[in-house]
Amino acid sequence: MLTDKEILKLINDAIEADPFNGSPGELYEPLDYILALGGKRIRPVLLLLTADMYSGDLQKALPAALGIELFHNFSLIHDDIMDNAPIRRGKPTVHIKWNPNTAILSGDTMLVKAYEKFLKLPDQYLRPALDIFNQTALEVCEGQQFDMNFETQGTVKIAEYLEMIRLKTAVLIGASLYLGGLLADAPENDLRNLYNFGIHIGLVFQLRDDLLDTYGDEKAFGKKNYGDIAANKKTFLYLKALENAEDEDRKRLSTLFSSDMVDPEEKILSTLGFFEKTGVKQATEDEIKKHQKLAQEYFDHLMVVPDRKKIMWEYTEILAGRTT
Amino acid sequence: MLTDKEILKLINDAIEADPFNGSPGELYEPLDYILALGGKRIRPVLLLLTADMYSGDLQKALPAALGIELFHNFSLIHDDIMDNAPIRRGKPTVHIKWNPNTAILSGDTMLVKAYEKFLKLPDQYLRPALDIFNQTALEVCEGQQFDMNFETQGTVKIAEYLEMIRLKTAVLIGASLYLGGLLADAPENDLRNLYNFGIHIGLVFQLRDDLLDTYGDEKAFGKKNYGDIAANKKTFLYLKALENAEDEDRKRLSTLFSSDMVDPEEKILSTLGFFEKTGVKQATEDEIKKHQKLAQEYFDHLMVVPDRKKIMWEYTEILAGRTT
Repeated sequence: MLTDKEILKLINDAIEADPFNGSPGELYEPLDYILALGGKRIRPVLLLLTADMYSGDLQKALPAALGIELFHNFSLIHDDIMDNAPIRRGKPTVHIKWNPNTAILSGDTMLVKAYEKFLKLPDQYLRPALDIFNQTALEVCEGQQFDMNFETQGTVKIAEYLEMIRLKTAVLIGASLYLGGLLADAPENDLRNLYNFGIHIGLVFQLRDDLLDTYGDEKAFGKKNYGDIAANKKTFLYLKALENAEDEDRKRLSTLFSSDMVDPEEKILSTLGFFEKTGVKQATEDEIKKHQKLAQEYFDHLMVVPDRKKIMWEYTEILAGRTT
Repeated sequence: MLTDKEILKLINDAIEADPFNGSPGELYEPLDYILALGGKRIRPVLLLLTADMYSGDLQKALPAALGIELFHNFSLIHDDIMDNAPIRRGKPTVHIKWNPNTAILSGDTMLVKAYEKFLKLPDQYLRPALDIFNQTALEVCEGQQFDMNFETQGTVKIAEYLEMIRLKTAVLIGASLYLGGLLADAPENDLRNLYNFGIHIGLVFQLRDDLLDTYGDEKAFGKKNYGDIAANKKTFLYLKALENAEDEDRKRLSTLFSSDMVDPEEKILSTLGFFEKTGVKQATEDEIKKHQKLAQEYFDHLMVVPDRKKIMWEYTEILAGRTT
């Protein structure tokens, strides 16, 4: 079995060995650029760790792992345009370094290239792999649209928020695990459990991100606190605070998040006060624990001997942020 | 055999019978909107006419026809953003009626939906159909990037222009014919001939469009003349005029097309003068004839009895604009 670090190297080597040398260069250079920004390659690592857990042939599964990574990067290019984000991983985003038109078209090209990777899979896997990939791709678009809707939508229910992050983040994690199992001929029942394991890992991952924005250790987290508050982001914390607050406080918190006239420092302090009063830190930790428990249950059901489960479990523990 | 009008009805009925009722509505409404703008559905009509020519099962080929139409509409949504186009078929474009973000994301969704249609094809056709579709999708993106590059590129050679319109327009026509043949089990050799027939039909189609902008009958063509000249578009006519002109005239024409300071009426008159002097009307007609001849040769090689070829030939004759 390979460690997650060895699998990450395998993925990065494959990406480096096969740059996009197509013509015109203006179309393909942004693809190499965004892939070279690196990142943890969580989704393809999970896919190959899963295949390895079932003693599958990693070379056979590799095209799907690369396809998932290309899809993820396509979504980053387009999301960065929509979110008006100037920086990704410390470098200018594609629409800033080039221009929005190039970012639209290079993103499209990257999506088509993701399908090209799937077309390298052996015949018997082609349809089932594309079925889950295509369904997931649609859901990720739906999640992004819900996220954009929430910006202007008056009331967002907690259930709506959880459904949004399930679509925008969790389903691609679930699909990565499912594909790893599929391509290693895991039992049908395990595929469902892998998918659901991934869904809850993905939810934990995103909820932890929400929590760390406010309560994280800036140094360990590597990101300044309160970015979500400054940007009026309707995170789990904010929505939970609204839900738990008394009428008067609910109005005041909601006003804080809809006005640009408030002094930023004051806004953060007031928001932290509301968060404290409504107990959202504990509520978020409870929600995270709930999904960690569900993830563990699905993982426990997998028909794999404990020895082969160890690397995956440890990797997802770190992902889920228990150790940081 | 069905006529092209009956096939068009079959396609429109299939589109109307299966609207995008997904959630969130903001994501899916633009897809129904752009499909409802209508149009001639040239690509799916060609696909099904081809399948019918080989006595194929039209219901079996229908998902590919719809997939091609969805892909074409995806490219329209994104191209309209890039080209800053406010109007399509007399109605506001998606990025104007909604906003650019929705147009980006709805376009992405439409591209994924196109693949979903292909996933409805029977197993034995899935890989070959997706192979040609995916290759074509990449080429269409490349064509659009070349087209955008040409706007700021100093010199564009005629050969580069022809390659651009081959990628941007002709390959999707070629792929439609290829897929129609593939799904009706046409002989391997015919698939190549169908593809090349489509390529040259596509080139004729685009060159005719260039010609009609300047020399078309406004009433019959349904579009005002000289739009390409006003927009400084590097059409076949303009590039041919540059190629044929003497040094002095070449500079003057090139200056006309790079300045926004020229009075529009004057610019059109001067350009028409250069076009006249360099004989580009005849040169474009010659280029069209060349591709019509090549198209006919590929068509003649198809292993189909003349009786079954008639509807297709007449349809492409009209497309190629011989009769208008």
